[in-house]
Amino acid sequence: MTQDLPHDLPARLCDAVDAAFDRQIAFLSELTSHPSTRGHEQSAQNFMAAELETRGYEIDRWQIDLAEIRHLPGFSPVLAPYEDAVNVVGRHRARTQKGRSLILNGHIDVVPAGPLDMWDSPPFAPEVRDGWLYGRGGGDMKAGLSSNLFALDALTSLGLAPAADVFFQSVVEEECTGNGALACLARGYTADAALIPEPFSEHLVTAQLGVIWFQVHLKGLPTHVAYAGSGANAIEAAFPLIHALHEMEHRWNAAENRPDDFAHMDHALNLNIGKIEGGDWTSSVPAWSVFDVRMAIFPGQSIEAAKAEIEQVILDAARENAFLRNSLPEIVYHGFHAEGYALSQDSSAKAASAISALDQAHLSATGETLDRAAITATTDARFFGLYADTPALVYGPHAEAIHGFNERVDLESLRRVTKATALFIADWCGVETI
Amino acid sequence: MTQDLPHDLPARLCDAVDAAFDRQIAFLSELTSHPSTRGHEQSAQNFMAAELETRGYEIDRWQIDLAEIRHLPGFSPVLAPYEDAVNVVGRHRARTQKGRSLILNGHIDVVPAGPLDMWDSPPFAPEVRDGWLYGRGGGDMKAGLSSNLFALDALTSLGLAPAADVFFQSVVEEECTGNGALACLARGYTADAALIPEPFSEHLVTAQLGVIWFQVHLKGLPTHVAYAGSGANAIEAAFPLIHALHEMEHRWNAAENRPDDFAHMDHALNLNIGKIEGGDWTSSVPAWSVFDVRMAIFPGQSIEAAKAEIEQVILDAARENAFLRNSLPEIVYHGFHAEGYALSQDSSAKAASAISALDQAHLSATGETLDRAAITATTDARFFGLYADTPALVYGPHAEAIHGFNERVDLESLRRVTKATALFIADWCGVETI
Repeated sequence: MTQDLPHDLPARLCDAVDAAFDRQIAFLSELTSHPSTRGHEQSAQNFMAAELETRGYEIDRWQIDLAEIRHLPGFSPVLAPYEDAVNVVGRHRARTQKGRSLILNGHIDVVPAGPLDMWDSPPFAPEVRDGWLYGRGGGDMKAGLSSNLFALDALTSLGLAPAADVFFQSVVEEECTGNGALACLARGYTADAALIPEPFSEHLVTAQLGVIWFQVHLKGLPTHVAYAGSGANAIEAAFPLIHALHEMEHRWNAAENRPDDFAHMDHALNLNIGKIEGGDWTSSVPAWSVFDVRMAIFPGQSIEAAKAEIEQVILDAARENAFLRNSLPEIVYHGFHAEGYALSQDSSAKAASAISALDQAHLSATGETLDRAAITATTDARFFGLYADTPALVYGPHAEAIHGFNERVDLESLRRVTKATALFIADWCGVETI
Repeated sequence: MTQDLPHDLPARLCDAVDAAFDRQIAFLSELTSHPSTRGHEQSAQNFMAAELETRGYEIDRWQIDLAEIRHLPGFSPVLAPYEDAVNVVGRHRARTQKGRSLILNGHIDVVPAGPLDMWDSPPFAPEVRDGWLYGRGGGDMKAGLSSNLFALDALTSLGLAPAADVFFQSVVEEECTGNGALACLARGYTADAALIPEPFSEHLVTAQLGVIWFQVHLKGLPTHVAYAGSGANAIEAAFPLIHALHEMEHRWNAAENRPDDFAHMDHALNLNIGKIEGGDWTSSVPAWSVFDVRMAIFPGQSIEAAKAEIEQVILDAARENAFLRNSLPEIVYHGFHAEGYALSQDSSAKAASAISALDQAHLSATGETLDRAAITATTDARFFGLYADTPALVYGPHAEAIHGFNERVDLESLRRVTKATALFIADWCGVETI
């Protein structure tokens, strides 16, 4: 601890979280009702900015400018326009500056809902049932934005504020590039630690994978299907390429390639064919197809080397195909160029003390020791850890079916995380009276 | 011949076609510039109706009413609305009624152009180069609409008209259902023969295949790709189904299944995966996919039996898949329920005399004997032949890359077909002075 906190502060903070928890659920419901998929984050960001402003935080709100970030390490290419890519940061400036500064980070963007008929209740009309809040983004990760905000509220309700600067970040683009978090870095936001309440079941994330996104574009000679023998089917031409990519996926997962954090996982690196589109007319041999791929890499694995191998695998498979040989696929990078990141490899004193503080806060709030986990996804933690020398603690509530139907977050878990977050803030930053 | 025609009439008709051929090319260019894909046929039909009206034909123009055709044999199911499905018929009523009546049929709808960058010149900005007219629909089959119209014009230019009723039909929906031609039948249009100048290289079509369209809808449990092992990929789940359908395709093509007209073709029946779509997000395991299939059947093969086998093949393949077994594919029929048709099997005197008249007209116009061919596509001929006891002669110009890029029609071939059509009309219908 940075200072001697009143011995009853943890209990009072927990009580304060309990007292406001109905309001927190109402906040989370309203936030989840904003359908903040890529390019449509504005209304959710308006709501976040208003909530922060009401509480007295200084608001910094800006549109991401590619010119300011595209040269930076960690940048991911984008195909879509950035007119609607707006970050919001709420700043708390401590009066006393006694403690250690903190970034509370969360992303506002959510992935698409998919076919609505597969949801039991509409994805953007959140509902609370049996202790769960259902809705797209409720878990990933608007619950985390709520725990960051209501943890601060708990201090406020006791007449306290963090005794160091706190930057509350609500960022876009976590689900496709991470350029929202990168833009926060480029804008000068740094701190002694970062907390990101992604929904990994109250575990402290020790390591995360890197992710590469790419599209494979195939074009061919279409014709009337009556002469199908003379035309090449650009949809079916994709199948052997996908098969070859899965073979690569299996090679990369081989035991000898796994770093320690993932040594126990047979298949940490998943290759996903996430989208496909091709052809225009049932009775025309399709002239084109495009499929989207997400492939994971281990921490320490080079993005450039991974890309080179991906390209080689696709082109080698294409050259074995009479049609594709004469019309080689085009590979387009349309998102994540994300390196892996392992907090477990951060041997700094700052990291050790941040982890220790979170251990203590979790124990104190929940009565349980804080478990560790390596995750098979990426988060914005990499920007803090890899490019800003800032230990990034990924620690959030339990959620299910993130990216799926009937996504839901466990509200009791959210309550525990909110309490632990409040205790962590008080410990890490110290407190001062308002 | 129905009457003694002046011995120099064939030569004068051919001269008349030559004299008007530049205007015919201009007409074809303008008609091809109308992008009359499904649902967008109106401007092309306006143009056709105006051209027919200028020439003095009575115009019948109506929107297809599903209620009037859905109970009829040959009807194909449709998913899209029919607000814009408008047929145009221009009627010539003979004064003398000495000859045999005739339907001159052509379809105004064209298939989509596909990616524009694969065209050497824009698909709906037709160009004449080296004796070819390039453009989507120029061959399939606006050239045929032009030969029907300018063959009649040739008679007019000599002060003559057909001595029997002629119904000039410009129909929609040939490329997906045939419901445009069916609607003409339902409206009462019948005649002693029909001529359909589809672009089959100046061959008389002796037999055509049937076609069935269907969509296969797959749905599954999506999830974050980090947990890909627990979710089922609805895109990749399609691949074994497609494989099973191709096995069925090969079985159906076996030598013992082929009728005489197709006995010499190893692979007349083509199965085409014409479209695919699936997934919403690169990093979400896709929850759904849909692929569109066109499958051909032989004349005499039952549509209902073919559908039953298709469904069985898909469901059997799905049951072998752990994921699909619990979420069986849905099969949707979204177009063609087209039976095969063989003019070669029409033993009527009417058919024999229509074929003989076309043989003679082609020989007289081109100096060549009329070749026969069985085709691996369908045409609207089936409605006349199967459901109206009317021999349907499919005979049109040479075109290339129909349904492909840089579709083009051979203008000298079009000139020959226009001449042969004029001679056929004069012979079949007889002539009367205007």
